[in-house]
Amino acid sequence: MAKPPKNAISPTRAENYAEWYQQVVKAADLAENSDVRGCMVIKPWGYAIWENIQRQLDAMFKATGHENAYFPLLIPLSFLEKEAEHVEGFAKECAVVTHHRLEPDPDGGLRPAPAAKLEEPLIVRPTSETIIGATFARWLESYRDLPILINQWANVVRWELRTRMFLRTTEFLWQEGHTVHATEAEAREETQLILDIYADFAENTMAMPVIKGEKTAGERFPGAEATYSIEALMQDRKALQAGTSHFLGQNFAKAQAIKFQNRSGEEVYAWTTSWGVSTRLVGGLIMTHSDDDGLVLPPKLAPAHVVILPIYKSDKERDEVLAYCESLKVELIAQRYDDQPVRVRIDDRDIRGGEKKWQWVKKGVPIRVDVGPRDVAAGYVFPTRRDVVGKGQNTPRDEFVATVAATLADIQQALFDRAARARDEATVQIDTLDEFEKFFAEKAPGGLAHCYFVDGPEMEAKLKALKVTVRCVPMELSDELGNCVFSGQANARRGVFARAY
Amino acid sequence: MAKPPKNAISPTRAENYAEWYQQVVKAADLAENSDVRGCMVIKPWGYAIWENIQRQLDAMFKATGHENAYFPLLIPLSFLEKEAEHVEGFAKECAVVTHHRLEPDPDGGLRPAPAAKLEEPLIVRPTSETIIGATFARWLESYRDLPILINQWANVVRWELRTRMFLRTTEFLWQEGHTVHATEAEAREETQLILDIYADFAENTMAMPVIKGEKTAGERFPGAEATYSIEALMQDRKALQAGTSHFLGQNFAKAQAIKFQNRSGEEVYAWTTSWGVSTRLVGGLIMTHSDDDGLVLPPKLAPAHVVILPIYKSDKERDEVLAYCESLKVELIAQRYDDQPVRVRIDDRDIRGGEKKWQWVKKGVPIRVDVGPRDVAAGYVFPTRRDVVGKGQNTPRDEFVATVAATLADIQQALFDRAARARDEATVQIDTLDEFEKFFAEKAPGGLAHCYFVDGPEMEAKLKALKVTVRCVPMELSDELGNCVFSGQANARRGVFARAY
Repeated sequence: MAKPPKNAISPTRAENYAEWYQQVVKAADLAENSDVRGCMVIKPWGYAIWENIQRQLDAMFKATGHENAYFPLLIPLSFLEKEAEHVEGFAKECAVVTHHRLEPDPDGGLRPAPAAKLEEPLIVRPTSETIIGATFARWLESYRDLPILINQWANVVRWELRTRMFLRTTEFLWQEGHTVHATEAEAREETQLILDIYADFAENTMAMPVIKGEKTAGERFPGAEATYSIEALMQDRKALQAGTSHFLGQNFAKAQAIKFQNRSGEEVYAWTTSWGVSTRLVGGLIMTHSDDDGLVLPPKLAPAHVVILPIYKSDKERDEVLAYCESLKVELIAQRYDDQPVRVRIDDRDIRGGEKKWQWVKKGVPIRVDVGPRDVAAGYVFPTRRDVVGKGQNTPRDEFVATVAATLADIQQALFDRAARARDEATVQIDTLDEFEKFFAEKAPGGLAHCYFVDGPEMEAKLKALKVTVRCVPMELSDELGNCVFSGQANARRGVFARAY
Repeated sequence: MAKPPKNAISPTRAENYAEWYQQVVKAADLAENSDVRGCMVIKPWGYAIWENIQRQLDAMFKATGHENAYFPLLIPLSFLEKEAEHVEGFAKECAVVTHHRLEPDPDGGLRPAPAAKLEEPLIVRPTSETIIGATFARWLESYRDLPILINQWANVVRWELRTRMFLRTTEFLWQEGHTVHATEAEAREETQLILDIYADFAENTMAMPVIKGEKTAGERFPGAEATYSIEALMQDRKALQAGTSHFLGQNFAKAQAIKFQNRSGEEVYAWTTSWGVSTRLVGGLIMTHSDDDGLVLPPKLAPAHVVILPIYKSDKERDEVLAYCESLKVELIAQRYDDQPVRVRIDDRDIRGGEKKWQWVKKGVPIRVDVGPRDVAAGYVFPTRRDVVGKGQNTPRDEFVATVAATLADIQQALFDRAARARDEATVQIDTLDEFEKFFAEKAPGGLAHCYFVDGPEMEAKLKALKVTVRCVPMELSDELGNCVFSGQANARRGVFARAY
């Protein structure tokens, strides 16, 4: 039997991070490229992670008064024309439906039937502000109807030039929240409430530390007055925008006549917000925690918390070991972690033990448990944590069962701590342009740089040359002012700069 | 205050069933037509019913070994050309994407950019056999990889000429299962397993009695060897096909090279199945149980089981009544029905009591509970069941709480029994053509007719004239043979005939 390589993933992170990422996606059986340009197939293990993300975010949205609904996939072309900036932002990259029927062509194949050309082309939604706004305009009559707090779980299509699984795909899955409010203050409050939910979810469920902040004008959602985001730092020291919350002011309300009668009987425009996270979160999860042996999953999102690997030779051993594993599984499922039964699988497939073990290592299951005839005889198990380098430890079965929930909680915390440490180590405050250029020099490791800045052409040019972007103005630091690193201007705000996905 | 009409829905079922249906959808706030031809907006109350359907079906699929995954929305045109019958069935009614960018047109609007015309048009999936089959062909190598048991929750688009909310819409939501097996027997077994799951769900969760049966050759899914369905009878005595399970034989396997190495080392074609239910189920739910006052929901699918309606005049009464309602809600949520906490809402909106009550009647909530100051003083509540005509009954609070789960179970059963009775009353066995024509005469009530039949031109012509279809050959009766009602041929099978949606 071939000895497993020193690391299960080749190349390693240090050798080639981008290629390592693709290999982890493949080795963990998360997704694969499809026959359709830029679109991926999300495989069962990857989709189960997305289902866990959905379930937990959905509960957070519902707990704060939001309801789910569903709006059409196809948007009339004329809807996109209504909000000028929005058109600029999205018209360039969308799938356009022009026909509603195929017919045989002279070569024996099929072609769009010329007689079935649509009078008005339809766009496959790249985002749904326009179609949902038109609906809200119908729903909204009086201040009594407000707020309208709606979320949609859906697929969207954006014709991306360069795609990478989970991080940027032509079609992706997401949730998009859309809300309507009577006052500016309430709409701004909603924008912040959602940003807080996203940050809470990222840190406490994904174990991925994030910075909450406001985007600069150039990075705003097309049509928004203000865009807020959560930004995470990946292991290659590049930032990932992981969720956005937009205060849309009255831009869409005015473009789409989202009006209501206020308490004084006047007809006034409403204030709207929109916000979303997508399957991109799975990409962030991979790049935050995984290592050179493959995926590492935080327990709260792992499709399985524990996988039990029975080991035996004879049929007699098989019966004994499997019975022991089955009763162990029952005991483990009776334990609760994160308000749910512990999720347990037994892998009894007839494949080599080494291959089996490495499959689960690469899939990132938090705890693997070997069970052999000697464990059965002694009432022991042999658990190994995925997040800790090295072998596991022989443990009395009862002790393992009694502590499994605490161990999962410990793994969840350890992953967060490790990611936070890595982020902090890669974060600097920079006050001079010279330092800034050195920090982001081509061979330098880079990271997150906090700098005072004033948005302007000097900065733009410098950032472009260095392939650096301003990620956000962190909420926590928004009161601190200093001199712009790029232009020397006073009273500049503090921003976070990084290379980014 | 205007007295509520004798019935909340106008017209009644007897007056105009088709229009009554639209009015129930509207009055219960389930869905509305959108700005996109044939596409609906599913509103929160309607979507919450769909979420309950999803949750419960999903658990049944997972309990039988199926896993969820996600496949591309867009399918290359050439994929549709591979399975000849499949093309015939679906090429006629699909949305065709031909461009991937818009550009400004001379009139100041937008148009598909000629330079961004796709080399190969893409089809918005009407169903996913072709794209999923191509994926399975990549996944499948050896008999060890089998069975492949995959389900997808997704949206699909079929360009329907005549649409009706939930029952037939251009875009709809559904689940589509796709499985691959080593042998014909296993694939046939899967087809039946799923048919049983659908029937179980329809009867025990939707409280909608169904007939399981096989479709005739003309009604098969395009490309299938055999199509099975569950058929329900609506209150207007028209049948509704509510779910289908297809045995695809090796048709798609051969068209798409879904092959594997068997135990003997030979490369052989696999056997596949596909199966689905959709948001059409919500239409079936409405038409099975609702009455002339609006929607009636079986408790297992109701977004709220109990709605509490506080009644008060003064501020002092308000405080007392609301406190009583809040603690009542806590007690009710602590009760469990159908393995879940009882779902309770308090409606404290500042609108007229009569209007409020009728909103919840129309939305079909199984139990409404009025609570006024006298109830608070006496420790009573005033519950009313939606499924029973007439007023509620003053009930000690403790008794109401202690029996709420049993009451919900009773409502669920009562709805099933009522629907089964209506179905049985509308079912006849018919042995002569004369009787058949009378039963389906234009002014006759119609219903389900069990008849011996041989598929053929005589039957086709007769059915077409009467606007009747053969729904299925029921599984239970498939051994009984007799003389064809239409042609007199012997050894004819027993079929179920009805007008249908």
